[in-house]
Amino acid sequence: MLTQDIRNSLIETTDLSQLKWDLNHLQPVDVGEYIAQLPQQQRAIAFRLLNKAQAIDVFEYLPTEVQEELINSLHDVQVVQLVEAMSPDERAELFDELPAGVIKRLLQELSPEQRQATATILGYPEGTAGRVMTTEYVRLREGLTVGEALSKIRRQDEDKETIYYAYVTDDNRKLGRVVSLRQLLFTFPDVLIRDIASDRVIKVRTETPQEEVAQIMQRYDLIAIPVVDREERLVGIITIDDVMDILQEEATEDIQKLAGVGGDEAALSSPLLTIRNRLPWLLGIMALYIGAASAIAPFQSVIAAVPVLAVIMPIFSNTGGTVGIQALTVTIRGLGVGEVTPRDTLKILRKEIFAGLGTALALSLTMIMLSLIWAHPQERWVAVVAGIVMATNTIVAVTLGTLLPMGLKRLKLDPALVSGPLVTTMLDTIGFLTFLTLISVGLNVFHLPS
Amino acid sequence: MLTQDIRNSLIETTDLSQLKWDLNHLQPVDVGEYIAQLPQQQRAIAFRLLNKAQAIDVFEYLPTEVQEELINSLHDVQVVQLVEAMSPDERAELFDELPAGVIKRLLQELSPEQRQATATILGYPEGTAGRVMTTEYVRLREGLTVGEALSKIRRQDEDKETIYYAYVTDDNRKLGRVVSLRQLLFTFPDVLIRDIASDRVIKVRTETPQEEVAQIMQRYDLIAIPVVDREERLVGIITIDDVMDILQEEATEDIQKLAGVGGDEAALSSPLLTIRNRLPWLLGIMALYIGAASAIAPFQSVIAAVPVLAVIMPIFSNTGGTVGIQALTVTIRGLGVGEVTPRDTLKILRKEIFAGLGTALALSLTMIMLSLIWAHPQERWVAVVAGIVMATNTIVAVTLGTLLPMGLKRLKLDPALVSGPLVTTMLDTIGFLTFLTLISVGLNVFHLPS
Repeated sequence: MLTQDIRNSLIETTDLSQLKWDLNHLQPVDVGEYIAQLPQQQRAIAFRLLNKAQAIDVFEYLPTEVQEELINSLHDVQVVQLVEAMSPDERAELFDELPAGVIKRLLQELSPEQRQATATILGYPEGTAGRVMTTEYVRLREGLTVGEALSKIRRQDEDKETIYYAYVTDDNRKLGRVVSLRQLLFTFPDVLIRDIASDRVIKVRTETPQEEVAQIMQRYDLIAIPVVDREERLVGIITIDDVMDILQEEATEDIQKLAGVGGDEAALSSPLLTIRNRLPWLLGIMALYIGAASAIAPFQSVIAAVPVLAVIMPIFSNTGGTVGIQALTVTIRGLGVGEVTPRDTLKILRKEIFAGLGTALALSLTMIMLSLIWAHPQERWVAVVAGIVMATNTIVAVTLGTLLPMGLKRLKLDPALVSGPLVTTMLDTIGFLTFLTLISVGLNVFHLPS
Repeated sequence: MLTQDIRNSLIETTDLSQLKWDLNHLQPVDVGEYIAQLPQQQRAIAFRLLNKAQAIDVFEYLPTEVQEELINSLHDVQVVQLVEAMSPDERAELFDELPAGVIKRLLQELSPEQRQATATILGYPEGTAGRVMTTEYVRLREGLTVGEALSKIRRQDEDKETIYYAYVTDDNRKLGRVVSLRQLLFTFPDVLIRDIASDRVIKVRTETPQEEVAQIMQRYDLIAIPVVDREERLVGIITIDDVMDILQEEATEDIQKLAGVGGDEAALSSPLLTIRNRLPWLLGIMALYIGAASAIAPFQSVIAAVPVLAVIMPIFSNTGGTVGIQALTVTIRGLGVGEVTPRDTLKILRKEIFAGLGTALALSLTMIMLSLIWAHPQERWVAVVAGIVMATNTIVAVTLGTLLPMGLKRLKLDPALVSGPLVTTMLDTIGFLTFLTLISVGLNVFHLPS
């Protein structure tokens, strides 16, 4: 909402010097969003109105494709300044998208330290701590005093991503202790760092998945976490702002995959991306339905004999499907926020089945009542069968909704791959087949009336 | 995963002095979780093994019901110490759950400042910035120098929730500027605060909804945000750790409500809470189905005449429902992360309908092909009708999926109130009715073969 107001006020500006003032005084993230939504040919013009410091800040907030555009349209000297000033993690993200030729040229122009930092980060696989960390952090030797540490921090580049924690390492860069800026400020200058720094350091490894990093930082209320390599040497830190973004992305991915939408789609994505993201799931469902429909097709004569089945069957389909999605969603979310792990599978299953039994009873009684309304008097037995199948379907639904995501997680796959539509289709097939078979047995074996 | 290991190692400890050492040296959040999962009668015993500082830290991490239990089983003096040491926002959260009598007694025992702080926070409605803020922050007068400011910060209680920003106010406590601890450290001690503090203060009002606070802090990468009242006076701050929790809660609520589950359910909730959270939605769906089924019931003779309809109809139901849920999910998530507002409704609708047309074409061709497989040769016209309805149903689905949550948001209601099952039920009713009516017209008006 904020942005909208700013954007409108910027768009309404006809005064160029006013626009220039605004662009240089508003928050970089707002200016970045404003520039990104301009027509392509105006973006470089607007960007040139920024002074150097603001340009550097704004550049980091631009979408990668706009950064790429600007790199092609700005002078080389300016490009190198911008890219040199980016934090190493942001730079790695940009480099991921650039053509190899441009990367090579840019890397040559960077200072040796920045080149090294970028190469290090790019060496780790996407989605791991190594890839989202920054190599800008404060490192202290054990032997320093608090006063020396504070002067060292003051001498550091003011742009270090976070100076709120300093990490204490030995001669081999092995991470030993951590001390917060707060502790440094509250301690007399002649105290030794090793006497106040904590050895209870919460850290992650370069290969730790990013969502696990986010869970750990959230759990321990950290604003930065150190990243170490296999030899326990400090190689970087991950800061809270990146982690908030990771948490949001992971939540979006979970929520959208459950609905059969890719995680990278947003409300204002292009229609083409939208189709590409959703259609495969829809066609997949229809393909699966060949199974469900093939299960029903042989029963066409049963349906012709008892047409009330066509009234009752959608209720199975939707209610059973909803029960399955409820269990699935709670399980996937529990895994997503780190509340549970595959080790808790039996515990969750026990709870789901207990709750499922209560739910099954309530739903199957309702189903029987509803069926009685629609069925002819001689078809009352159909209502009882409907009630029974409703109950078994509920139990099958909670079981599938729990076991499928847990199984995937145990196989180290993304539990959200079991989307809602997949579960409902499976439940439809099982439910319809059970129901129609029982009705068919009732008609043909027990010669119940139709 | 972390916790599980710690929990197991704690449980396996038979050595009491080892347990005591562990409980006093592990992270407070882990100890809190360990104590919370102990049998009720052991919780107070374990808690008494903690030294005072650790007890204070651990207490804040306990679930409210365990805090309440401990308040009833510990000595009054100890209780007052614990409650006095809590941060005002945590204390307000606890007081929300306590019986009025206990609150009154505890309030009397608190120091005047803490009593005032708690009363202030409890005065704001749940879910607003005022309710989640803390009143512990660093406030500076404009006239100070950097050196004076740093000594003032050093003199403050070390427990202030955050000292990473200091807020500059005038004589009426009106918030004017903000300065970061980082800036203070990088500036010479004799510089005036007013010369380095920024006047571009991003702040929220006490009545700002908590999810909006979270969106703003995430957008501007803040680790704390000041909260002001209607007169622009500084009354508190909100810190990043609380905001991370808010973001997670809001995401969980969105994801679970979409599936027809309340936001307060977790993977390991009790079966009873589970049933209470899910059954109302399920019964609601079945109640709504009285509508859908009543729409189908009169067509029983049509179904008896063309039983392949029973094979085709579930495909409508599931595919159309999935299309609706896809649009619904992306819209709700877009609102949830602040990407879009109701002002963007037309923009989203345009994109959804464009994408919907492409999707409709693909789905309706597939539907026709599938129907041709199951239909008898003389029923081929049924396949064409199925294809047409599939297409219209897709467009209706994306329209409902977009307009329903946007409409609720515009009415200042929770957009996630339109759960997935509600949309699928509406789509079923519309789709079945259209399909059966068209088939009925084909049979009776045009005398097409069955």
